[in-house]
Amino acid sequence: MVPYRVVVHVDEMACWPVALTNLRNLLNDVGQDHLQAELVANGPAVAFYADLPETAEKFPPNWQEGVYRELIEEMSGLHSQNVRFIACANALRANHLDPAQLLPLVQVVPAGVTEIVRKQHEGYAYVKP
Amino acid sequence: MVPYRVVVHVDEMACWPVALTNLRNLLNDVGQDHLQAELVANGPAVAFYADLPETAEKFPPNWQEGVYRELIEEMSGLHSQNVRFIACANALRANHLDPAQLLPLVQVVPAGVTEIVRKQHEGYAYVKP
Amino acid sequence: MVPYRVVVHVDEMACWPVALTNLRNLLNDVGQDHLQAELVANGPAVAFYADLPETAEKFPPNWQEGVYRELIEEMSGLHSQNVRFIACANALRANHLDPAQLLPLVQVVPAGVTEIVRKQHEGYAYVKP
Repeated sequence: MVPYRVVVHVDEMACWPVALTNLRNLLNDVGQDHLQAELVANGPAVAFYADLPETAEKFPPNWQEGVYRELIEEMSGLHSQNVRFIACANALRANHLDPAQLLPLVQVVPAGVTEIVRKQHEGYAYVKP
Repeated sequence: MVPYRVVVHVDEMACWPVALTNLRNLLNDVGQDHLQAELVANGPAVAFYADLPETAEKFPPNWQEGVYRELIEEMSGLHSQNVRFIACANALRANHLDPAQLLPLVQVVPAGVTEIVRKQHEGYAYVKP
Repeated sequence: MVPYRVVVHVDEMACWPVALTNLRNLLNDVGQDHLQAELVANGPAVAFYADLPETAEKFPPNWQEGVYRELIEEMSGLHSQNVRFIACANALRANHLDPAQLLPLVQVVPAGVTEIVRKQHEGYAYVKP
């Protein structure tokens, strides 16, 4: 069994930077071969996954466009090292987003909270940045 | 064993709406027969359980009275589907509330944090909205 | 095995008071002999551990110097009852702090998030105040 398993929960846009930093630190510390990690976004945080002009309006006031670009690049880098990125379909509907509008690396699940509970039952640790 | 078991932790008033939405989404997704869920409130969030005029003063600024009524109804609906709602006695004291002032569906435990730890030791997942 | 085991996660300065209160309530409720507890600080919250004039500038606006002193005393009291206090080395670097600047009771780990995941894999519950 892979020694480190974690589900990271993000439900506010403002928590994305620290969530990605946590995953990067974990990956650097234990190495890709020893980590199974996924990030589950629900609530308004799912808008991060939609690379649309409207997304910028949902940014925290202190994010510039350049910051968002860097975060998206960091997410792609983590994804290329096997970190999974998941969106809650309920949250997409509540935020008037269609799965087709999301970045291709994102997987959609019917309910993000079920995914978070299921992963913990499978032995994943939970981190809420 | 019931397949999905979760303790949801709420310690700020502003987190009640998303916590109730998480529980509703989970219930709709897995069904009442497959879920054992409880919400543990501590800190200032326990005031939500006290249906008193003073509670309104502790609302986040963007909640109207009508919003609070709808949330209380949603809590009652979840409770009728076997979701348990728990208050921390330490938090009640710190917020000058008496257990007798709480809605009848609420159970009081000596320390909310102990309940949260115990449930995880019993195999419940933890979600902090 | 000790019946109650918990890792408490603090990543924002503003969450220190409630985190220490949670640990105090847990200790009072279950007793020192039945508790293995540690607090892991990462992100800007690590500055709490550095007893420096600059730390005061990172306080939430509603903290007075006296409040900080009381919290440090409470942390020392908990530490004398075997609660461990841990800092993330990545967060120290990001906040321009050296391990030598921290209060002596603090242990430093390479990555706070790894510690949080590892403890959960060892059977510790997770609480995010």
